[in-house]
Amino acid sequence: MDYVLPLAELIEQFRKLPGIGAKSAQRLAFQVLSWDKAEIEKFAQCVLSASNQIHYCPDCFNFSTGGGLCATCSSPKRDKQIICLVATARDLAALERTHEFKGLYHVLHGLISPMDGVGPDQLKIKPLINRLKEHTEIQEIILALSPSTEGEATTLYLTRLLKPLGVKITRLAFGLSVGADIEQTDELTLAKALEGRREC
Amino acid sequence: MDYVLPLAELIEQFRKLPGIGAKSAQRLAFQVLSWDKAEIEKFAQCVLSASNQIHYCPDCFNFSTGGGLCATCSSPKRDKQIICLVATARDLAALERTHEFKGLYHVLHGLISPMDGVGPDQLKIKPLINRLKEHTEIQEIILALSPSTEGEATTLYLTRLLKPLGVKITRLAFGLSVGADIEQTDELTLAKALEGRREC
Repeated sequence: MDYVLPLAELIEQFRKLPGIGAKSAQRLAFQVLSWDKAEIEKFAQCVLSASNQIHYCPDCFNFSTGGGLCATCSSPKRDKQIICLVATARDLAALERTHEFKGLYHVLHGLISPMDGVGPDQLKIKPLINRLKEHTEIQEIILALSPSTEGEATTLYLTRLLKPLGVKITRLAFGLSVGADIEQTDELTLAKALEGRREC
Repeated sequence: MDYVLPLAELIEQFRKLPGIGAKSAQRLAFQVLSWDKAEIEKFAQCVLSASNQIHYCPDCFNFSTGGGLCATCSSPKRDKQIICLVATARDLAALERTHEFKGLYHVLHGLISPMDGVGPDQLKIKPLINRLKEHTEIQEIILALSPSTEGEATTLYLTRLLKPLGVKITRLAFGLSVGADIEQTDELTLAKALEGRREC
């Protein structure tokens, strides 16, 4: 064993994090040990607080605190007729940063991926159906899922599932990135951009 | 604010770690939140244990537990006549992994770097002098410092400081890496390898 036990254990804990290999875990653990006691306690306390205080919003399944609906779902300023469906809370945060969307969200917590054993039942799809039945004011669902294989499969599955419920289903536009170089854009994206062209 | 407060605070804590930017900190915090409660508590507990149980060995300043000398300094199997001087406990661990060195260590906890405000007084140099005075059996000090600007400055400083004390001062050899390609080796290393050539 190269390190004293508590240090070896701390390195092991850091290795459990995504993208952290053996060398990085050592670097992180050594950094933590270089902090003063108060800083280390604050770090540990934040880990525990996040675990104890955060729960899922019962409506949209984004993170929430205090036991009830999240800030978005309980805000009177948000348009309750339109729901934007996202795979993760991080995607939700990315959309919020645009300041363009004023409706509500629904977090699926993943995408359909048979290879990883993730089917519709592992995602928050049933609660979405219940939400649509309870909140008859909902007019439109935007499927804001990444155009990966899993994202496309989930989009297809949800379109078929939700269309019969009489709600409008839309998806994010494909096209050029802002500031993109046409020459550098891949042909699939370019084809999608042509297909989705708009009058000026 | 994009995230609920405890999550935002946890992200902030991860950002304090070396090499962790805003995006990585988010990824790590989300991963921690995806763990079950017992795993999260284990993680926080390991952080606190590392802080509470680890202290510096009073002789070599490597990490130690239990209040006394570290396992190396208290081992009867180690040669107490030779001290290998390293910048950090990680360098010490790297040398231990070679299983070649049977003496004791001394951890400087950094290198002289005027640009970063690190002078000899910030390093464990005074305790090294005291150690040499107390343990008259010490015959040789190996300066195992990286050949960076700071490492070279520290090697030079320590050579001048320690030579008058009548102890043998050596440093690690320069040369080709094992398995290295001569064509790919930089000219400075190649020059050092030529200079340090040995009879076969």
